[in-house]
Amino acid sequence: MVFIDFYNSVLNNSLTSYDDLPYPVSKVHFKKGSIITDYGQIEGAVYFLNSGIVEMTVKSYVSEKMIDFFFEKEMFTSLTSFLTQRPSDVQMTALTDCEAEMISHKDLMNAYAISIDANRLGRIVIEQAYITKAQREKDFLSKTAEERYAEMFRTHAQYISNIPVNKIAKYLGIHPESLSRIRNKMNS
Amino acid sequence: MVFIDFYNSVLNNSLTSYDDLPYPVSKVHFKKGSIITDYGQIEGAVYFLNSGIVEMTVKSYVSEKMIDFFFEKEMFTSLTSFLTQRPSDVQMTALTDCEAEMISHKDLMNAYAISIDANRLGRIVIEQAYITKAQREKDFLSKTAEERYAEMFRTHAQYISNIPVNKIAKYLGIHPESLSRIRNKMNS
Repeated sequence: MVFIDFYNSVLNNSLTSYDDLPYPVSKVHFKKGSIITDYGQIEGAVYFLNSGIVEMTVKSYVSEKMIDFFFEKEMFTSLTSFLTQRPSDVQMTALTDCEAEMISHKDLMNAYAISIDANRLGRIVIEQAYITKAQREKDFLSKTAEERYAEMFRTHAQYISNIPVNKIAKYLGIHPESLSRIRNKMNS
Repeated sequence: MVFIDFYNSVLNNSLTSYDDLPYPVSKVHFKKGSIITDYGQIEGAVYFLNSGIVEMTVKSYVSEKMIDFFFEKEMFTSLTSFLTQRPSDVQMTALTDCEAEMISHKDLMNAYAISIDANRLGRIVIEQAYITKAQREKDFLSKTAEERYAEMFRTHAQYISNIPVNKIAKYLGIHPESLSRIRNKMNS
């Protein structure tokens, strides 16, 4: 799936050409391990992930924490930095080779001033981001690591083998040994 | 400040009549202690708070937690329930007598289908909600309860005397006795 298909599906449109979109979209590739947005950088774009996996980390006062993974067909950006145009407190890294499409901050702001569809898409995408963040907050309060891993496995089974175990453990907030125990239990 | 002033200030508009807004807005009053949106209820409106304080709680697996306070000039709703039209997992209660203006879910959805300004306002309000939620998540990871109380005091000093101590302590995630110690230290 490419960005224009995502755009059409969210807005119930049937555009056939990228020229009909309210902003320019350009293709970009990231090699495995390369930093897409660094700590302290002002986020200048939003991305749609065509293929690959992106990880997002944050530095807390004790260590670096894994706060999110993004998979294909998802939009991603350092959202607070993008919205406020202040330095990013998260880092985004390509966990595998990635292909993405990007829209620059300037082009998006220009479109927001005149296009109802740009605003509709922006509103709906950020509504989803809010729901996801609220759900994750609630899950941390109410679910065990085992339940959260089972949920991740249910929704993203095809990707999990591409993510190192220590990164999944960091995301779940548990030790890698605990994750191994959970995995063995699920496989038995 | 009433809703139309908020609308104009966010969108740089200068509407003078509520008839020019893209949706009907109605006034509503809540008596101190009354439940605005209950657990399990499907949220049917968004509100703009003209005066008073609203508290938002969530049931976690151990107890009820205070997750937010809303003050005058702020929009509030059980946002995930409003967006998904599924039962609310938070409860909103009037902490003082409140006056608010409300827009129904149906009227807002109708406006979203045709009005660029309705979409612009919706997008910007939810961007702010996202930023606030992300900031609170980060503060919990990186700041002490004392720092978070000092920040709350800095931004909302005029309201704090209207909120019972045990509710502020619940919001900060600490015991009321710990909050008393922090307050005494700040006053000395």
